[in-house]
Amino acid sequence: MQDRGMLLLLAMAFGTSFAAEPEARVNGGRIEAHLQALAQYGKNPQGGVSRVAYSDADRAGREYVLGLMRDAGLTVSIDTAGNLVGVRAGADPALKAIVLGSHIDSVPEGGNYDGDVGSLSAIEVAHVLNEHDIRLRHPLQVIVFENEEGIMLGSTAIGHGVDAARLAGISQSGKVVRDGLKFIGGNPERIGEARRASGSIDAYLELHIEQGGVLEQEKIPIGVVEGIVGIVDCEVTVEGFANHAGTTPMNQRRDALLAAARFVDALNRIVTAEPGQQVGTVGWIRAQPGAYNVVPGKVSLGLELRDLDASKIQALYSRVVKAAQDIGDKTGTVFHFDRHAASEPALTDKHLQSVITESARALGLSSRRMPSGAGHDAQEMAALGPIGMIFVPSVGGISHSPKEYSRPGDIENGANVLLETLLRLDRQPTAR
Amino acid sequence: MQDRGMLLLLAMAFGTSFAAEPEARVNGGRIEAHLQALAQYGKNPQGGVSRVAYSDADRAGREYVLGLMRDAGLTVSIDTAGNLVGVRAGADPALKAIVLGSHIDSVPEGGNYDGDVGSLSAIEVAHVLNEHDIRLRHPLQVIVFENEEGIMLGSTAIGHGVDAARLAGISQSGKVVRDGLKFIGGNPERIGEARRASGSIDAYLELHIEQGGVLEQEKIPIGVVEGIVGIVDCEVTVEGFANHAGTTPMNQRRDALLAAARFVDALNRIVTAEPGQQVGTVGWIRAQPGAYNVVPGKVSLGLELRDLDASKIQALYSRVVKAAQDIGDKTGTVFHFDRHAASEPALTDKHLQSVITESARALGLSSRRMPSGAGHDAQEMAALGPIGMIFVPSVGGISHSPKEYSRPGDIENGANVLLETLLRLDRQPTAR
Repeated sequence: MQDRGMLLLLAMAFGTSFAAEPEARVNGGRIEAHLQALAQYGKNPQGGVSRVAYSDADRAGREYVLGLMRDAGLTVSIDTAGNLVGVRAGADPALKAIVLGSHIDSVPEGGNYDGDVGSLSAIEVAHVLNEHDIRLRHPLQVIVFENEEGIMLGSTAIGHGVDAARLAGISQSGKVVRDGLKFIGGNPERIGEARRASGSIDAYLELHIEQGGVLEQEKIPIGVVEGIVGIVDCEVTVEGFANHAGTTPMNQRRDALLAAARFVDALNRIVTAEPGQQVGTVGWIRAQPGAYNVVPGKVSLGLELRDLDASKIQALYSRVVKAAQDIGDKTGTVFHFDRHAASEPALTDKHLQSVITESARALGLSSRRMPSGAGHDAQEMAALGPIGMIFVPSVGGISHSPKEYSRPGDIENGANVLLETLLRLDRQPTAR
Repeated sequence: MQDRGMLLLLAMAFGTSFAAEPEARVNGGRIEAHLQALAQYGKNPQGGVSRVAYSDADRAGREYVLGLMRDAGLTVSIDTAGNLVGVRAGADPALKAIVLGSHIDSVPEGGNYDGDVGSLSAIEVAHVLNEHDIRLRHPLQVIVFENEEGIMLGSTAIGHGVDAARLAGISQSGKVVRDGLKFIGGNPERIGEARRASGSIDAYLELHIEQGGVLEQEKIPIGVVEGIVGIVDCEVTVEGFANHAGTTPMNQRRDALLAAARFVDALNRIVTAEPGQQVGTVGWIRAQPGAYNVVPGKVSLGLELRDLDASKIQALYSRVVKAAQDIGDKTGTVFHFDRHAASEPALTDKHLQSVITESARALGLSSRRMPSGAGHDAQEMAALGPIGMIFVPSVGGISHSPKEYSRPGDIENGANVLLETLLRLDRQPTAR
């Protein structure tokens, strides 16, 4: 019995042009209904959800999603890292799996789109394949990763592996990670078994909301992600001298907060001085001793730099350090930089970028390439094989907030690009 | 029997010139010994003292000082506000008292000079008068005020009066003020009786360490205080928009911390742009939500302005508010100013300034006029009559710190100027 996969193979073999199947489209209304239903798990009175990993809401939400996966015809299991893994057999047992995935846990007081859109769209894609009885050449896997927002544990366990220290931490639910993992059906003692080998997948695709405002502002429905930016976090300490704010003349001060303020401004100038999509942020600050009537003697602040290009981050960092030294010289203060373990940029596969772009075009959707400024499970899956990411617009660029919102039409477009990209990849010769 | 007071009166009456009594000098070694002894009460392992009001150390230190006052020939009582009041009768019962005073309570982890120098020097002056059997025309009072560092309670009770709310607060000792007051021998129910009428004193003189570095830097041993600066404290709130630090492009941010940083810098420029001794400080700052990966949506900070001239403070404040509006316009943020109850400048008496200056000159000591950037009990005593203040150098300008230090020679000079000023005031016709 010929199945659709075989038809496609024949079509490719004979160069015919019925590759684009007009009937293979996602059901946008179903995705929206599933988003609404999932939004009930951990719903906040003031809107949005607090469905942090290992909370009761997380566990209940996962149960709901697991049911959707089964309804989509996937065979579902929970790996030792607690990830929900749904599989669908392919026609060619020699081929590696194409994996679609995202997460459904949220930040505290988060929204209903970050992670949910990608997870439910991946399930919808499987559902559509099932409904239309489309058998792919490749095995398909849909993974709903656990604890992305906290410490990206589920995908890290699959991609790079996790050490014991991670399991001993306290999660945002209040539970020790190890206990949380058990709570949702994982097995911390055997988490190492969740890790997969490099080269073990054909491709990983993730649909996600942009979480920034670029697509909406430029009225472009599809973002083709060039990569996930690398991050340098650095605790900066400014040492001045605390003194009485009434009795210390202005010219005798060594004001650590004045120096820190000039640093924050200098960082902004340095980062915006050149073209590109690099970002630099001071997100937190503390002044000591911290009273109206004391010139601050010490200030600590959190510096973060992100870019797709690690060498660019390093160049910016060097310029920032140099600027700090100048400010220190002028204010009688000393800057210390305590650079934390950085995350390296994770570039998406160029070929996958092209297939996503072509898929969007075939669906009549414009697209643009762009970095992902946020981290995603995809960066861990990059350890296994080529990754691709599709962004859809976030209204107002708002994310990690109950105000987070993506329009149903945009989500449907993104899910259709995900489906189309999957179908096109599946048709292509495996050795790319 | 003629006493020295009568001799002085006769000298004044006949215009003779033996007014400066070469033998009437303080015993610098004794002041130093008393400072060392007082330093044992609440001594910190790492140096300095923590003798906050109503602590066990405070009560024990007060007991010790009360003994010194008695040794100096003063008749001591504790008023209902807990102040130690030592009195010495004058020759002319029609004259109002000349009052010398300061405090002995400290900030947490404070030093051994702020307050102690003035209190022990005032007692030393009384001691010298007693030793030399010098009877003044005016009654003399030495007051060791309680709880200056916390809420300036003792002198406020005498000067402007305190309301019930003050007594209900928590002191730095952890005790409710009311209970603390009882603990040191005051009577909170009858604290109103400690208040004294306007015009009830002839003069109030206070010796104090400068707490700034001006005298030391200029190698001038005596500061003649022109007044205690007025203070405006203001909580400034900057409202921007919190967003993801990775996904929000630099040009789409409304970064409250960037705006706040520019504000801190602008304040410094405004305050230092014109000549004068005004100071402006941002002593504390908080950014929300306060994480590496979130652009701060809200920042609060503490603005303080001080000057002897209330109109100058107002002018600076207006300029600062204007600058904030400009910064807000450029950064997409909004500044709010919540101005707290300000303390008005308390000017010292011009005539007392002159007498202090002449006294220093007679002792061969140079002096300069200067504001007091810090608050002092003198500002409350200004409600009763003319006040004068004498400053001695603080090494390195350090205060409210275990590193606070004033040299014994400088303290002795200051105490001698206090004595000489007292003697000269006592000789002058009362109606000034």
